[in-house]
Amino acid sequence: MDIAIIGTGAIGGYYGARLAHSGNDVHFLLHSDFEYVKEHGLTVDSHFGDFSLPKPKIYANTREMPPCDLVCVAVKATANAVIFPQLAGVVKAGGAILLLQNGFGYEPQLAALYPKQSILAGLCFICSYRDGPGRVRHTDYGKLSLAAMDNDGDALARISELFERAGVETEVKADLTEARIRKLMWNIPYNGMSVIADCRTDALVKNPAMRSATCAVMDEILQAAKAVGAAIEPSFADEMVRLTDEMVPYDPSMRLDFLAGRPLEIEAIYGNFIDYAEQRGYEMRFAKMMKWQLEYLETRFR
Amino acid sequence: MDIAIIGTGAIGGYYGARLAHSGNDVHFLLHSDFEYVKEHGLTVDSHFGDFSLPKPKIYANTREMPPCDLVCVAVKATANAVIFPQLAGVVKAGGAILLLQNGFGYEPQLAALYPKQSILAGLCFICSYRDGPGRVRHTDYGKLSLAAMDNDGDALARISELFERAGVETEVKADLTEARIRKLMWNIPYNGMSVIADCRTDALVKNPAMRSATCAVMDEILQAAKAVGAAIEPSFADEMVRLTDEMVPYDPSMRLDFLAGRPLEIEAIYGNFIDYAEQRGYEMRFAKMMKWQLEYLETRFR
Repeated sequence: MDIAIIGTGAIGGYYGARLAHSGNDVHFLLHSDFEYVKEHGLTVDSHFGDFSLPKPKIYANTREMPPCDLVCVAVKATANAVIFPQLAGVVKAGGAILLLQNGFGYEPQLAALYPKQSILAGLCFICSYRDGPGRVRHTDYGKLSLAAMDNDGDALARISELFERAGVETEVKADLTEARIRKLMWNIPYNGMSVIADCRTDALVKNPAMRSATCAVMDEILQAAKAVGAAIEPSFADEMVRLTDEMVPYDPSMRLDFLAGRPLEIEAIYGNFIDYAEQRGYEMRFAKMMKWQLEYLETRFR
Repeated sequence: MDIAIIGTGAIGGYYGARLAHSGNDVHFLLHSDFEYVKEHGLTVDSHFGDFSLPKPKIYANTREMPPCDLVCVAVKATANAVIFPQLAGVVKAGGAILLLQNGFGYEPQLAALYPKQSILAGLCFICSYRDGPGRVRHTDYGKLSLAAMDNDGDALARISELFERAGVETEVKADLTEARIRKLMWNIPYNGMSVIADCRTDALVKNPAMRSATCAVMDEILQAAKAVGAAIEPSFADEMVRLTDEMVPYDPSMRLDFLAGRPLEIEAIYGNFIDYAEQRGYEMRFAKMMKWQLEYLETRFR
């Protein structure tokens, strides 16, 4: 199977390297690390065992990439507007596009642009980060939760099997919207608050005020999910807190972006879902307050 | 008229000096500035004209103060639990206690402790700060809004006249709860956000995200006021924004407290009113989020 990895960072680098390591023909799009990886290859330091790809197939531009059966989009959502139109030459007719990305509301955009392809969401429950050029450090978790537009069972089964064979635990979800909201259950409280309060995950679960705030936001997401017709069991929120309690102290991706001066996924993680819920009659006030604070911090330090 | 000023800082120092300057017998309680003021007196640099008191009557302890007709409590609300019981020796039977302080919910506590005295709230619409020992800098505004427990008209008229004669513009409010909420309309959005976003008032009104956030909190306070039976006209919130637009860029008192490592008036400005509204069926989510964030910042940097 020909696979394109659009964006070889903490997510694309990890899953792409696993797919290549298990024998697939993987084509990696790189930007700043291109020259380094050309010389030194890709390395994954994983708590499941380290491995490396000495000579991965790499590209500096989507125009040079071959048409693939599966295109994994693993750039930040802030780059979607630029990247989405470029996928036309990278995905085969009848192929699939898998959005390995945080956020909410982008699969319908892809489906409108690529009506002949299967459009899937991949929710990455993983702790990994780019640890220097061509190097991904994978510290915890790794499960991939998959869902498809129109619940496309064929594409789901095919891609789930592909990842499972590559050593990635997957689960298939029937409802893409609900699956996306489940991922927001972690991202909305912890990603933004780590930027606003300038701290790692451990402070967010250990400090009583931060624990109250993040749990209240999760409760709000449960209410919003119900209001938009994608109800989630309350124990799922408890499970996110428990996972974070047990996590190695961690800088969420939004904090890493903030500290590195990169754009923040504010619309992807906050704005789009806040608007979606509000259009369906539910106002997410806790999340809104965080969104405004993040917008201020981003403009101030950009 | 014998007047006690409990706490000679930006508020007590300013109003107390005006009352003394207009011929009243004013007794100032001082703490850290006692020795300095004993030698150099009190100075007010005011945009209405500078003046000073070379030999004010000062005290280092409430036990040494004479019983007074009017006791102005101008300490931070965080000191109320310590100061309130000490007022027994400072206020005459039939005298009045005026709480010149930000926050919500403390007059009923005073009324329970001092049932024979008139209990009043003084809402200080003023920009002033302590500019070194024995020196208050008054940069803008100055109006004092007065209200009494049980709408005690005699006490209100007497004390309003006293301040007016001292050159302080006053207005008398019939409903103490409503008057307190009007003051929160400024304090809840601007005091806390200046700490959370680490900025002065100008950033809070000029940055679009901060302007949206602070205006949304004001709208929430309007809804809460209505829910607790103290409805305030929406144009009052607009007026607070307009005042802040026109203000000299200013560090709200909570930010000064935070930068100086002093306790924050979180319960006074946030917690008490949030609880009051919630007990009456209205949940203030914007304000709650700010409260948790402030609690975290306070514990982190204390």
